[in-house]
Amino acid sequence: MKIVCLGSGNVATHLMVALKNAGKEILQVWSRDISHARKLATLVDAVATDNLEDVSKSADLYLIAVKDDSIAQVSERLKGVRGLVVHTSGATALDVLEGLDNFGVFYPLQTFSKSKPVDLSATPFCLEANSDSSYAVLQTLTQAIGAPAYQVDSAQRKTLHVAAVFASNFSNHLYHLAYTILEGDNLPFDLLRPLILQTALKVQRDLPLDVQTGPALRDDRLTMQKHVDLLKALPELQALYETLSNSIKKTYL
Amino acid sequence: MKIVCLGSGNVATHLMVALKNAGKEILQVWSRDISHARKLATLVDAVATDNLEDVSKSADLYLIAVKDDSIAQVSERLKGVRGLVVHTSGATALDVLEGLDNFGVFYPLQTFSKSKPVDLSATPFCLEANSDSSYAVLQTLTQAIGAPAYQVDSAQRKTLHVAAVFASNFSNHLYHLAYTILEGDNLPFDLLRPLILQTALKVQRDLPLDVQTGPALRDDRLTMQKHVDLLKALPELQALYETLSNSIKKTYL
Repeated sequence: MKIVCLGSGNVATHLMVALKNAGKEILQVWSRDISHARKLATLVDAVATDNLEDVSKSADLYLIAVKDDSIAQVSERLKGVRGLVVHTSGATALDVLEGLDNFGVFYPLQTFSKSKPVDLSATPFCLEANSDSSYAVLQTLTQAIGAPAYQVDSAQRKTLHVAAVFASNFSNHLYHLAYTILEGDNLPFDLLRPLILQTALKVQRDLPLDVQTGPALRDDRLTMQKHVDLLKALPELQALYETLSNSIKKTYL
Repeated sequence: MKIVCLGSGNVATHLMVALKNAGKEILQVWSRDISHARKLATLVDAVATDNLEDVSKSADLYLIAVKDDSIAQVSERLKGVRGLVVHTSGATALDVLEGLDNFGVFYPLQTFSKSKPVDLSATPFCLEANSDSSYAVLQTLTQAIGAPAYQVDSAQRKTLHVAAVFASNFSNHLYHLAYTILEGDNLPFDLLRPLILQTALKVQRDLPLDVQTGPALRDDRLTMQKHVDLLKALPELQALYETLSNSIKKTYL
């Protein structure tokens, strides 16, 4: 299988490295910025280009991993190719690729950061395609990576994307708010790191509903009042404390 | 070192097992409920009792791991002992133990659940004591367990407790809210588990501020509006989405 990668960011890099390691041939890497294209191309023994005209017409797979609002524009230039064209976006419907012969979505549900290793074999891939044969191709890719595959249609993927914002973006922001609370009292963030990790580990088997702890769950009003008082100097955090505590209380009513 | 444990819940159990494994002798386990006392006592080769009158006067350490509002009552009955009396509460000041000869706080900053293994050697212990010699005893205990120790006074411990609510209780609740979003669209929670774990792993070295991702960070209004629209049927989650997104935006202004 010969692959062309369109894009050179975090998602493109993690996917291309995983597919290369799984024995796939990466033909070309395209990026608007040739130095970015070269960086990833070097990593996976591919040819770099910044010109969409130069993209091979004979690849088996075109993987578009660019910003959401550039997907339409990039895919427009792939019209006429016989290979399977997929995007990797959680927030973009399949139909942005309508007009191509074979198309699909190959969405790894994970948070990618530069230079942070990610275990892609433990990352769920959400697959969608315009035909059974296109879908089968995407399944062989997840099998090559060793990752679990889920059939998720465009409507479901939207829902999933919102849920992921709560589970990941918002959680990370709560970690940051905890950091700011500690900072005010000269306490190191190291104190919270094992707690954060254990909290995430606990829901790897159980449901969050079954492992909730804390004063809101126990409706321990004395402790909650103390906490609210302590946050007086941080009114935004104080309001958030009350909102989230009430939300927990309601859950267990 | 001979230890008496007062309490038989999650914290008591995890601590006694760790101290027993570190070669300490657990003399007695007291609990209001004799069957609970027996269960833990059996685990650590100790004698069980439900009568505070029967508690040995000659132990080196009395570890009080009961509900916060019972600490004063239990410690009252230990008046006159020469051994070091400590409580394990994040939300309770040191001075609840005033009146005893030697006293302190031995607070493991971790979330404990029944039958969930916890790596106590990776758990930060927050120590406070009425004297240098009492403090030194607590340090030998954390060394025996192999855990990091931090000197944290009662005011700082309060701050820490609030921060821990944000980092752990509230994060877990966000996982639950994500679960409810998925549930409405027949999507399995397994889809989010690797993302949740990776989000926690990312802040084990970096600061949350430096690894934030998502539409609010990018000020991607189109995506945020789509998400808000999608949450129309869940007004509480919709409001929370806007509150947390605004909080993220403000952080990076």
